[in-house]
Amino acid sequence: MTDYDEIRKHVEANSQTYLNSLKEACSIPSVSTEGTGFKEMADWLEQRLGGLGATVSRLSVDGSPEALLGVIPGSGDRTLMIYDHYDVQPVDPIDLWESPPFEPTERDGRMFARGAADNKGDLVARISALGIYKELVGDLPFTIKFFIEGEEESGSVHFEKICQKYASELASDDCVWEGGWFDLDGAPQMYFGCKGLLYIELNARKLSGDQHSSIAVYAPSAAWQLLRAVASIKDSDDSIIIEGFHDGVSEPTPEEVALVDKIPFNESATLESLGAESFLGGLTGTELKRNMIFTPTANIAGFHSGYGVPGASKTVLPAEAMAKLDFRLVPDQDAEDIAKKLMSHLERNGFGDVEVRVLSAQNPSRSPIDTKLGLAARNSAQKWFPKETAVFPQMWATGPMYPIAQGLGIPICSPPGVGRPDSNLHAPNEHCRIPDYLSIVGYTVAYLEEYGRA
Amino acid sequence: MTDYDEIRKHVEANSQTYLNSLKEACSIPSVSTEGTGFKEMADWLEQRLGGLGATVSRLSVDGSPEALLGVIPGSGDRTLMIYDHYDVQPVDPIDLWESPPFEPTERDGRMFARGAADNKGDLVARISALGIYKELVGDLPFTIKFFIEGEEESGSVHFEKICQKYASELASDDCVWEGGWFDLDGAPQMYFGCKGLLYIELNARKLSGDQHSSIAVYAPSAAWQLLRAVASIKDSDDSIIIEGFHDGVSEPTPEEVALVDKIPFNESATLESLGAESFLGGLTGTELKRNMIFTPTANIAGFHSGYGVPGASKTVLPAEAMAKLDFRLVPDQDAEDIAKKLMSHLERNGFGDVEVRVLSAQNPSRSPIDTKLGLAARNSAQKWFPKETAVFPQMWATGPMYPIAQGLGIPICSPPGVGRPDSNLHAPNEHCRIPDYLSIVGYTVAYLEEYGRA
Repeated sequence: MTDYDEIRKHVEANSQTYLNSLKEACSIPSVSTEGTGFKEMADWLEQRLGGLGATVSRLSVDGSPEALLGVIPGSGDRTLMIYDHYDVQPVDPIDLWESPPFEPTERDGRMFARGAADNKGDLVARISALGIYKELVGDLPFTIKFFIEGEEESGSVHFEKICQKYASELASDDCVWEGGWFDLDGAPQMYFGCKGLLYIELNARKLSGDQHSSIAVYAPSAAWQLLRAVASIKDSDDSIIIEGFHDGVSEPTPEEVALVDKIPFNESATLESLGAESFLGGLTGTELKRNMIFTPTANIAGFHSGYGVPGASKTVLPAEAMAKLDFRLVPDQDAEDIAKKLMSHLERNGFGDVEVRVLSAQNPSRSPIDTKLGLAARNSAQKWFPKETAVFPQMWATGPMYPIAQGLGIPICSPPGVGRPDSNLHAPNEHCRIPDYLSIVGYTVAYLEEYGRA
Repeated sequence: MTDYDEIRKHVEANSQTYLNSLKEACSIPSVSTEGTGFKEMADWLEQRLGGLGATVSRLSVDGSPEALLGVIPGSGDRTLMIYDHYDVQPVDPIDLWESPPFEPTERDGRMFARGAADNKGDLVARISALGIYKELVGDLPFTIKFFIEGEEESGSVHFEKICQKYASELASDDCVWEGGWFDLDGAPQMYFGCKGLLYIELNARKLSGDQHSSIAVYAPSAAWQLLRAVASIKDSDDSIIIEGFHDGVSEPTPEEVALVDKIPFNESATLESLGAESFLGGLTGTELKRNMIFTPTANIAGFHSGYGVPGASKTVLPAEAMAKLDFRLVPDQDAEDIAKKLMSHLERNGFGDVEVRVLSAQNPSRSPIDTKLGLAARNSAQKWFPKETAVFPQMWATGPMYPIAQGLGIPICSPPGVGRPDSNLHAPNEHCRIPDYLSIVGYTVAYLEEYGRA
C-alpha cells in the first residue's frame, strides 16, 4: 500500500504542473451548445492520454460530436472506466464575469474559468493522478478506459446511441463517474446515482407579427397563453400537477433515507451563498434533505416574449413566446414518458396549440454502493479527507449515467470531485478552490491504488 | 366654400412634393426611448412651420424633451390646436424590416418607414394641407397652434406638466388630435376619446446570481414567482381580477353604445391581417365591438428570464425575472389609482417581494362629439371620403388626451388619419398607403375650411 504522505508530498512538489494542465484545458472554449473549440479540446486530450500510454479512438454516431475512448492497458482481467466530459456550458451573461471565462485566472486561492469545476477540473485531476500512479505505484493492475464525451452540457443527446454502438469497446467492470463535490464546509460527497433530465422548449405563436398593444383587447396573446400553460404545471406549493407525473416514482428504501438523513447540509451557509432568504417551500432539516434527493422538479430555465429593455416602455403585443423548462426526474421515472404526459396535460388544459420540443431526455439512475470501486472510493475517502464523506444514493443533479449503469450494466460510483456548491457551475465566475483541485489529484491516486488491490 | 375637386386636383398635381416632405421627416430617427434624432427632427419642424408663418417656441419642463408650439396667427377670435408627436417607436426586431426603418421606401403603393403611419404621416399631411389652404382659400380666419410633443411613444411622461406650465400659451377652443384611421376596407374612422395607459415593469429577484438548475429543488425561483404574480392578474376568461379594478369604469350611454354598434369592423380581414385564428375569447359581432371600445386590458408587453437561445439547452435557475405589463384603461378609471390597486393585489396574493415600477400613467379621456370642430370634421368627412365615416366615442388605443381635454378643458376630435390596422404600428415594416396619405392632405384642407366658416 502506498503511503498517503508520499502522495501528498508528490502532489505538493508538482502542484504547478497540475495547475498549468488545468489552465491549458480551461483555455479551450469547448462550448457544446455553440460547437466551438471541440477539435482543439479533443486533440489536447488525445495528446495527454497518449502520454500515459493510451490508445485513443474517437467514437461517434450520425450528428454527434466525437467522444474519446482512451484505453490504457494494464495487467489482470478487470477494467475500470473513467467517465468525464470535455464540453462546457455557455458563458452568458458574459458581462458578469470578473475575468474572461476562457482565460483561467487565479484569484483568492481559486481558479476562475468556465469548466474549472464542471468538469475539466475533475478530468485533468484524474489524468494528472494517473501520471503520479505510474511514478509512485508502477504499472496498472487493471485496464483503464477513459470515456470522455462532448455533449454532456447540451443534454448528451447522442450518448446512449454511442454507448449502444460501441458496447463491446466500452465493456468494463466499474465506472468512475464525473466527480462529486465538497460541501460548503469542505466535507466531501460521493454519489451512486443521479436524477434524470427532461429539457423542453415550449413555443406559442398567436399572430403573424408583433402588434400595437391596444389591440390586445381583441387579439390573442402568445405570452398569456404560454404563461398560463407553464403556470398550469405546478400548484402554488410547487407540487407538479401533470397527471401521472409521479406514477413511476419509486419510494426510497429505509437505508437510502438513512444515508440521506446523515448527509451534512449547512443551511445558513447555503442560503448565504445563494443570496436567498429561505429554501423553497420554507423547508429545513431532514425534510429539506429528503426533498432534495427524492423529489422531482420543474424549473423555468428561460421565458422570453416581447420587449425587454429595463426601465423603458414599448406598448407591444408580442406575436410569440418561448419557454425553456427542465424537469429533474427520480428513479424510476422515464423521461420520454414524462414528455408524453406533459403534452397530454397541455392538450387537456387548453394549451394544445403550444408547440413542445424535447431538447433532452435522460433517465434517472442508481447503482449499488457495495461494488469494488464503491468500497475503494469510500475507504480511501475516509482516510484521505479530514472530514467525513457523505454518501448520496443519488445526487440532485443529472448526468448520463443511465446508458452506462442500466444500459451497459456497469455500476457507477462518483467519488468526491473539485467543485463546491458556490463554484458557480453553469453561471458566471465558475471556479474551483485550488486546494480542492490538488486534493482530488492525490485522492484519485489513493483510490485507484486501493481498487487495484481489491 | 372651396370646391373639393379643386383641392383634389391641387393635391394630385403636387403629390410628389408632399411625399418628399414625408420622406424627409421619416428619415430622421427620432426614437423617444433612445433619445436619438430629436434636435434634428425639431429643427426640421421649426423650419417647416416657419415657412407657414408660424412663430415657434420650445416648451419643456425638467427632464422632458422639447415640445414644439408653432403659432400661425389668423383673423377672428377662435384658436384651433393641432396636436401631433414627432417621436417614433423603437425599431427592434430590426432584422424583420424589409427595408431600413429610417430609409423611407415606396413599395406596392405604400411608404415604408418607422413613423410613416404613427404619426409623422398625419403631422406632415397637416403641415402640407396648411400650405394648400393658404394658396386655395387664403388667410386663416382663426389662429392655429401646432402643439407637437416628443415623448408620446414613451408614455408622454412630462406632457401633463408641460400642459400645466404653458396653460395660457396653449389656450384654444378646439383641438385636432393625432389622426384616426382607415379600416381594412378603407372606411374612415374618427375618435373623440381614448383609453388610458398604465405601463408597469415588474422585477423579481430571488438569488444573488444564476445557478445550476439542479438546485431548483431547494432554491427559490424568480421566474416562477413572477410568472405566478402575472398570472394572478387575470382569470382564464381574460377578466382582470385585481380587487377594485373595475370600480371606476363608467357604463357607456345608449348613444355611445349605438355609435359603437354602427362601427364597421371586417372580422375576417382583421383576422387575416393579424394571422390569427379567432378573436380573444372567441367574440364576434356587436359583443366584440363593445368589448373593444369599453373594456380595459392587461397586456404582457414583455416577459424575460433566463436562457433564450432557440433550440438550445441551458440548465440554469435564473436569479431574476422581468415583466412589462400595459393596462388600457377606460373612463373614468384613474391610472395612478389602478397602480396602487395592483400593488395591493400583489401584496395580498403573496407577491409582495415583486418590485413594481410605474413607467407611464395616462388617464382615459372622452370629449363631446357636437363641437364646432367635431361637426366640421364629420361633415367634410362624409363629403370627402367615398365610404361612410365611423364615429368612435372613444378609441381602443391611448393618447395623452386627458391633459388637453380634461386638464385644459379643450374638447378634442381626432379626424381620419393616414394609418390602417395593417400599417404595422409599433412593429417592423410600418407603412402607410400613399393614396391614404394624399387623401388626408386634401381632407385636412376641407375640414379646416369648414371649421373656418363655422
